[in-house]
Amino acid sequence: MEMVSINELELNKKINIGTVTLSEQDIIDYAKLNDPLEFHIDRKAAEASIFKGFVASGSQIFNNLHKTGWIKLFGHSVICGLEVNNWKFIRPVYANQLIKGTVEPIIINKNKEKGHAVIAWRYEFTDTKGELVQILEVTVLHKL
Amino acid sequence: MEMVSINELELNKKINIGTVTLSEQDIIDYAKLNDPLEFHIDRKAAEASIFKGFVASGSQIFNNLHKTGWIKLFGHSVICGLEVNNWKFIRPVYANQLIKGTVEPIIINKNKEKGHAVIAWRYEFTDTKGELVQILEVTVLHKL
Repeated sequence: MEMVSINELELNKKINIGTVTLSEQDIIDYAKLNDPLEFHIDRKAAEASIFKGFVASGSQIFNNLHKTGWIKLFGHSVICGLEVNNWKFIRPVYANQLIKGTVEPIIINKNKEKGHAVIAWRYEFTDTKGELVQILEVTVLHKL
Repeated sequence: MEMVSINELELNKKINIGTVTLSEQDIIDYAKLNDPLEFHIDRKAAEASIFKGFVASGSQIFNNLHKTGWIKLFGHSVICGLEVNNWKFIRPVYANQLIKGTVEPIIINKNKEKGHAVIAWRYEFTDTKGELVQILEVTVLHKL
């Protein structure tokens, strides 16, 4: 993936940020660091949960594709993060499940005098059937 | 901190989830894993940023006190996470700055037949002057 200029962005145009498949160990390692609930880190608790197996901590898919996809494309222009909204955990993300991520700018508010832009990014994560597993909106201040 | 029963919760009553002070190395290590923007991981970039020094990745304070505070109190009753809303990065969190966290249930929607409750938790993070640095709302399905 290559850096993308903020000036080239088109409103509501989806951009691919890659795919990820988390192993059971990826899920356990992430949860131990960030979200050590029993059913994310222990096999018996995972199997006894409503999910009947290991599922990723809510934030893991976003954190993963944000890092490996979005930051490579747009990280160079970030001044600071402003807000996160409407983060919906729609379906569980199981170990060994392929997940695809896209982003699209849903607000682009440029201030040419100040040389910056407020952009609201809508992230979508889908499974191999194309069904949404997770969405969120992240608002970021970018350099133009 | 000791486990708290979901049945004992009072609406809009703040509960202390502890304090945290991040070192420069804590900020760099977290950003490398989750949010590797230049100004979070490189001293020159940090000093050239609008913050003029190392500041934590937006999610770090929440992830830290969620893990060390909230999960110890309430993690035993979690069925699954549902949503995150209104996460506002109000002020930067600098290295070596003491931050205090509280949570309060702003919605408690019990379903006694099903034996669960949907709870919206409002997290507040404040500096030593008592000024808000960050807020968010996390909606979780709990066992009763």
